[in-house]
Amino acid sequence: MNDDFEELWDGLAPLGRNRATGGYRRYSWGPADTEARAWFTSAARARGLGVETDRNGNLWAWWGEPGPDAVVTGSHLDSVPDGGAYDGPLGVVGGLAAIDELRRRGLRPRRPVAVAVFVEEEGARFGVPCLGSRLLTGAIAPERACALTDADGVTWSRAMEGAGLDPERMGADHELIGRIGAFVELHIEQGRSLACTGDPVGAASAVWPHGRWRLDFAGQADHAGTTRLVDRRDPMLPFAAAVQEARRAAEEHDALATVGKVRVSPNGTNAVPSRVRAWLDARAADEAALRAVVDRVDTAARGSAADHGVAVTAYLESTSPLVEFDHRLRDRIAERAGGGSGAVPLLTTGAGHDAGVLANTVPTAMLFVRNPTGVSHAPGESATAADCRAGITALADVLADLADAAPPEQA
Amino acid sequence: MNDDFEELWDGLAPLGRNRATGGYRRYSWGPADTEARAWFTSAARARGLGVETDRNGNLWAWWGEPGPDAVVTGSHLDSVPDGGAYDGPLGVVGGLAAIDELRRRGLRPRRPVAVAVFVEEEGARFGVPCLGSRLLTGAIAPERACALTDADGVTWSRAMEGAGLDPERMGADHELIGRIGAFVELHIEQGRSLACTGDPVGAASAVWPHGRWRLDFAGQADHAGTTRLVDRRDPMLPFAAAVQEARRAAEEHDALATVGKVRVSPNGTNAVPSRVRAWLDARAADEAALRAVVDRVDTAARGSAADHGVAVTAYLESTSPLVEFDHRLRDRIAERAGGGSGAVPLLTTGAGHDAGVLANTVPTAMLFVRNPTGVSHAPGESATAADCRAGITALADVLADLADAAPPEQA
Repeated sequence: MNDDFEELWDGLAPLGRNRATGGYRRYSWGPADTEARAWFTSAARARGLGVETDRNGNLWAWWGEPGPDAVVTGSHLDSVPDGGAYDGPLGVVGGLAAIDELRRRGLRPRRPVAVAVFVEEEGARFGVPCLGSRLLTGAIAPERACALTDADGVTWSRAMEGAGLDPERMGADHELIGRIGAFVELHIEQGRSLACTGDPVGAASAVWPHGRWRLDFAGQADHAGTTRLVDRRDPMLPFAAAVQEARRAAEEHDALATVGKVRVSPNGTNAVPSRVRAWLDARAADEAALRAVVDRVDTAARGSAADHGVAVTAYLESTSPLVEFDHRLRDRIAERAGGGSGAVPLLTTGAGHDAGVLANTVPTAMLFVRNPTGVSHAPGESATAADCRAGITALADVLADLADAAPPEQA
Repeated sequence: MNDDFEELWDGLAPLGRNRATGGYRRYSWGPADTEARAWFTSAARARGLGVETDRNGNLWAWWGEPGPDAVVTGSHLDSVPDGGAYDGPLGVVGGLAAIDELRRRGLRPRRPVAVAVFVEEEGARFGVPCLGSRLLTGAIAPERACALTDADGVTWSRAMEGAGLDPERMGADHELIGRIGAFVELHIEQGRSLACTGDPVGAASAVWPHGRWRLDFAGQADHAGTTRLVDRRDPMLPFAAAVQEARRAAEEHDALATVGKVRVSPNGTNAVPSRVRAWLDARAADEAALRAVVDRVDTAARGSAADHGVAVTAYLESTSPLVEFDHRLRDRIAERAGGGSGAVPLLTTGAGHDAGVLANTVPTAMLFVRNPTGVSHAPGESATAADCRAGITALADVLADLADAAPPEQA
């Protein structure tokens, strides 16, 4: 079995963990992310894999010569603020451990196999999720990525330079994409579907369409103790109206809508704010429902803003259409992941993934590992070591199948 | 006339000003505040005044030997985040300029005169406004002050130590208080009353009762794209309900209620927050109305929190009862400030001041200078140089009267 999992896991797990919260703070190109990337490079090289950094900062560890028809697995190492341990790392550790497993079985793949680490999957630092895979596939223009800034005003290109990369080379990499015959991402489940069905492993059928919108409410800073209510232009009030409407609209459309991030200026107890900047994350089963939810929030924000003399501007920061994973690949990996005892369950997900971005370009699939708490993007996210091993075994079975792995004498 | 005003003003005005916003960021014991205090010490010494730091970190510049029946003026140098130029500094610069003016008139006071600079008047760093004057008068226990922390977890006592002071000595200073025969604070008006009546200067009659409350909404962090609405415990929703109820309650009670400061954890776009911490600032003409407003916000917050599985805790951070300034002193200074052409107008204010704290212990009054925009706690706060000079002349007249100033041959 894949006993290397725990050794790999123990090497990565301490990096970027906040002692107070137990959550992870690994932001792209920051110190913890840099440590985690170095850990990956070192772990891959220790396995004799050739490690490359692509033009957009994604890492690739190759088993065999990089070449066409490669079978790629992997995930990401960055986190949301105080994120859980498994979201991303499980797929990276899992990829390396699956290679160990195939070697232990005495198998050698006829096709190249690679483990990829995509940068800025969460979008926690620069606002656009799956930035590394979007750049790779050309789903976002390099000019737009260059100009993205973090909370301190540092641009994406500046941060890349800080990591020793050349932003001039950023952009779609058709040669690299052309090598990928199939991509399979192993990921912690971000809900309780597998916990309910009692299965340790499942496969993805589709990713809901989703997006994030920034709402800027611009009012007028004033003294909280002296400015008459009628003279105020308080942006906190239309912001609050937007928060409440987001929930109502999501309920009515069986969708999800969340306002999880807010910045208030000047953020003083005794000052009416001059500005409230808020981010809306919305997801729905289809594009029409998603549009309806966002339109309702926008209308409510504008209505309340007009009542309070506040200006509101909405920016679409990122959007991802409905992704249906390649049906043939999905059914094939669901069957293989079942290990001979029937196909694993198929799940839809509201979460975006690099796999969702790559699915527009190459045949792509996802495997999920059971998360008993269902908690995600928070320290309470969980998985048993046994379930992680089951996920890695399933991934190894899938890689063996797709890469046509066989004992060396047959290869 | 007081032509030293501009020279003094120009020395202080650049310290702590943010170029991008034009607002001030002078937080107690921080670098800009330290520079401003050094500026005061230097300006006072240049005038031959004796400068002392009291046990609580307030600065005192004495004209004449410190002693009983002193007439004290002054204000504060700290600011709210991106505050205006005049709130605080006008009273400090005005105090020094008024002494220059009395000297220019060839007057020498029979009683000691002092200019005081009180620390942490805004409460922007440690959460409790008028902390310096509260400590001085015993209105807050030193143990409570010691434990106050800023956003980075630095305690008040640690910050004091950093400035070379001994927190062990903190607390009510009855000897110093016993010396104050009267306190008069010159301040920018934080509204448009004087702009409406066309008067450059006014006097305070009362300060509304007011307070600040912290509301902690504790929920459960989760993935915004995967956690079903029914499974969420999203603290942003009851927070939004509290914001809206605060406005409605204030409207109905002719009061003021503001939520100007919010901290969200983890504050990620695609994470349901685990916690929202918000501050409510409420003020009303009487205690009953204030209580009614705060009770309504509390009830709305708890009701919505219960609906969403969120825990809410309310903390009273500070409260100030109705302050009616000493009537005799009020009428006397209003008359003197009028410069022989009748008393200046009397104003009530919703803003707290060190004068409001001192009023419980010593005869206290306030003078206001016209603010054409009425903006306060924001860069748009304004006063003409002519009106500042009129305020300083009025203050000089009041100090001359109260300190029984006369030409030296009569002294």
